[in-house]
Amino acid sequence: MAPAGALSTDLYEFAMAAGYYASAGKAHGSFELFVRELPATRGYLVAAGLEPVLEFLSSWQCAPEEIEFLRSVPALSGAPASFFDEYLPGLRFSGDVWAMPEGTPVFAGEPLLRVRGALAEAQLVETALLSTVLFQTSVASRAARVVEAAAGRAVTEFGGRRAHGVEAAVAAARAAVLGGCDATSSAAAGFRYRVPVAGTMAHSWVMASNNEITAYRRYVELFGDQAVLLIDTYDPIVATNAITEAGLAPAAVRLDSGDLEGLSRAVRARLDAGGLTETRIIVSGDLDEFRVAALASSGAPIDGFGVGTALSTSSDAPFLSGVYKIVEVEQGGVLTPLMKLSTGKRTAPGRKQVWRRRDGGRAVGDTVGLCDEPGPMGFEPLLRQVMRGGERTVAPVSTLEARSRCRTAVAELPSAVRRLESPAVYPVTRSAGLDQLAESVLASQAGAGPHGE
Amino acid sequence: MAPAGALSTDLYEFAMAAGYYASAGKAHGSFELFVRELPATRGYLVAAGLEPVLEFLSSWQCAPEEIEFLRSVPALSGAPASFFDEYLPGLRFSGDVWAMPEGTPVFAGEPLLRVRGALAEAQLVETALLSTVLFQTSVASRAARVVEAAAGRAVTEFGGRRAHGVEAAVAAARAAVLGGCDATSSAAAGFRYRVPVAGTMAHSWVMASNNEITAYRRYVELFGDQAVLLIDTYDPIVATNAITEAGLAPAAVRLDSGDLEGLSRAVRARLDAGGLTETRIIVSGDLDEFRVAALASSGAPIDGFGVGTALSTSSDAPFLSGVYKIVEVEQGGVLTPLMKLSTGKRTAPGRKQVWRRRDGGRAVGDTVGLCDEPGPMGFEPLLRQVMRGGERTVAPVSTLEARSRCRTAVAELPSAVRRLESPAVYPVTRSAGLDQLAESVLASQAGAGPHGE
Repeated sequence: MAPAGALSTDLYEFAMAAGYYASAGKAHGSFELFVRELPATRGYLVAAGLEPVLEFLSSWQCAPEEIEFLRSVPALSGAPASFFDEYLPGLRFSGDVWAMPEGTPVFAGEPLLRVRGALAEAQLVETALLSTVLFQTSVASRAARVVEAAAGRAVTEFGGRRAHGVEAAVAAARAAVLGGCDATSSAAAGFRYRVPVAGTMAHSWVMASNNEITAYRRYVELFGDQAVLLIDTYDPIVATNAITEAGLAPAAVRLDSGDLEGLSRAVRARLDAGGLTETRIIVSGDLDEFRVAALASSGAPIDGFGVGTALSTSSDAPFLSGVYKIVEVEQGGVLTPLMKLSTGKRTAPGRKQVWRRRDGGRAVGDTVGLCDEPGPMGFEPLLRQVMRGGERTVAPVSTLEARSRCRTAVAELPSAVRRLESPAVYPVTRSAGLDQLAESVLASQAGAGPHGE
Repeated sequence: MAPAGALSTDLYEFAMAAGYYASAGKAHGSFELFVRELPATRGYLVAAGLEPVLEFLSSWQCAPEEIEFLRSVPALSGAPASFFDEYLPGLRFSGDVWAMPEGTPVFAGEPLLRVRGALAEAQLVETALLSTVLFQTSVASRAARVVEAAAGRAVTEFGGRRAHGVEAAVAAARAAVLGGCDATSSAAAGFRYRVPVAGTMAHSWVMASNNEITAYRRYVELFGDQAVLLIDTYDPIVATNAITEAGLAPAAVRLDSGDLEGLSRAVRARLDAGGLTETRIIVSGDLDEFRVAALASSGAPIDGFGVGTALSTSSDAPFLSGVYKIVEVEQGGVLTPLMKLSTGKRTAPGRKQVWRRRDGGRAVGDTVGLCDEPGPMGFEPLLRQVMRGGERTVAPVSTLEARSRCRTAVAELPSAVRRLESPAVYPVTRSAGLDQLAESVLASQAGAGPHGE
């Protein structure tokens, strides 16, 4: 199956593209991608998905067979033949992009990404940009919470099997590492993104052997000090005793069910008594940040956590209320800021910048302003240009570099904002320039809307 | 980016594969994929994902650069060189597969899919099979509920932008149509799976025009009787009046915000008064089965629903508690049924079949038995062989054929099981043969487990 290209969008984007083409509209515009509100359980989000977006935009085009398909779609039957024959075959993304670097903490109403370009191009990429950025941001944001909960113990992403398909599994693994995880179990993510991969064994390895200790002995013979033994297929205490009695010295043992706190203490005692003081204990099994925090604060002798579904599906907040909205149109050299007035879905007009103020190594507040306003004194602008005329203007950033940025930037947030339960609201204000623009657009649009021809 | 191949798995599957290879184990085994329990909101699931699984298995192999990557992974450093040099390059999936046809209603504890093959191969495909089947089953299951709620009105899947990446968006669109939706907005799903695609316009089309009626006029000039106009960017009533006054005759208008019931009545009245009695009304905006049911039962003049996030992320149940467990090992001609005893995660042993009994056109109960038990009188077996020795034994089934099967089979379920709230539990029993086997395995495994060498 070919990777999804320019057809990775909603059909109406093609209808509108045909509309712009047919009306010979040379209009450009700017669109911003932002999250309307944070899920109740999140004090902050971690921006992620930019590198995959830049890869997507760089290779974006319609294959001939895709164009033939579009030609056959009844809803597009009104589009001129030259739209299919001339326009779509040569179409490439030639716009400009500004974005927050991956790993940057971000809040409701702050644009993570802005696209400026021909209206048709900027529309056609909408669906792919939203699905990529919102999903990776969801996972990275939850990973940051799980890592915070683990308080320095290792966290490995284990959730490939419950992700939304094989590609989502790889993307989730990437985003989980970006958000702070130490490693992933996804072999494909290790290959594509050069992130650390880790693994143990499955219950089936134990079950398919004649007996449990034979299964362990074979694994340790093969993998030596890399071996991690899963000890809960039958009885973890009996298994631990058998391991020490057999003289095996695995790197770690893993518990995947039951009372993880009590079992980890009992297993630790038996490992230590058997001389296996270097053998670590890893736990897994339907963990999330709250269970991880409870285990970490219990003082249980747990060295690492494997976290699956909670990370790969961002299960408590499986989507973000993110949108991609037009904020300005440029026609004949005239810039017109725009805002949508739909009930409950009003947007803010104009191209924006997000400024973050730091004080003594702490992020203390953001201001959303217009991108041509002078930045407030001592504030750092978060959106930077990453693409000009369809060409990248910044070198690719590896997932591990982004993780490093994320860990630093999250540590700068106020601890109350990082709290797992009832996080405090981080202060985000709007600049006077943005408020004034919104007022004036509101006044003019309300009049101009469906009336004056 | 190349589509995910054999690396679409957890690293430990490769570690175990190396283990089976190193021990020259010729053992085969059978694994079953099933859901442990239904989400609280689901009375049934709709099996989906089989066609993509068969495509995946048919093309499954390790590329040379992927093998080089695996060779560099520290956790695999104990694997013999010939594992990388000889075994992995020639590895293909050569097992047998049984499965429920896509679109079949399925319940907790019933295998949707069974794989029989070399243990290493059957393990290596685990993660991809689970992520594909569980995700598409989640979405198809929710789609069936939304379609039930719509009571005959059209339902279009609109959720690409909030899906878990671009590939998940296409898979979700496929599964939503399979589960009963009339169409999807995903152009890529239309291209790949030949499912109906539909679309309207975005708010940006209206906002980027000098005024609203110009935006509509241009669209209708181009798309004629295919045009669907979005009327809530500013004021839907004002927009409707302008449309009728301008003499435009769109196929439909769409409301995306506000009081959809009240607005649809007001818009209908104005359309009818303006002679546009054939113009349909489509509504969207954070809809799910409950909102759809309320709108449908209100008698509001709504002709179709666009449903997004609720479908593409299965947002109220974003994952299923699905697993893929070994149920039998075959070594030297001896078949040994297996079960896992982990706390809270016990499995049932042996290769199974699911039998469904029908009475007067109603499905009235299932029995899970062993696959070599004679089927109960008058029951239909649901699992069928679909692959033998790595080759498909059944022709591909199109998504629309599977939708047709789904609609029929869901209609056969008791209405109480299909209820949106507090659905009744569909009766699933276990055969005497399966119960007896479980008892005998429990007795023997409990003894054999970690003890006797």
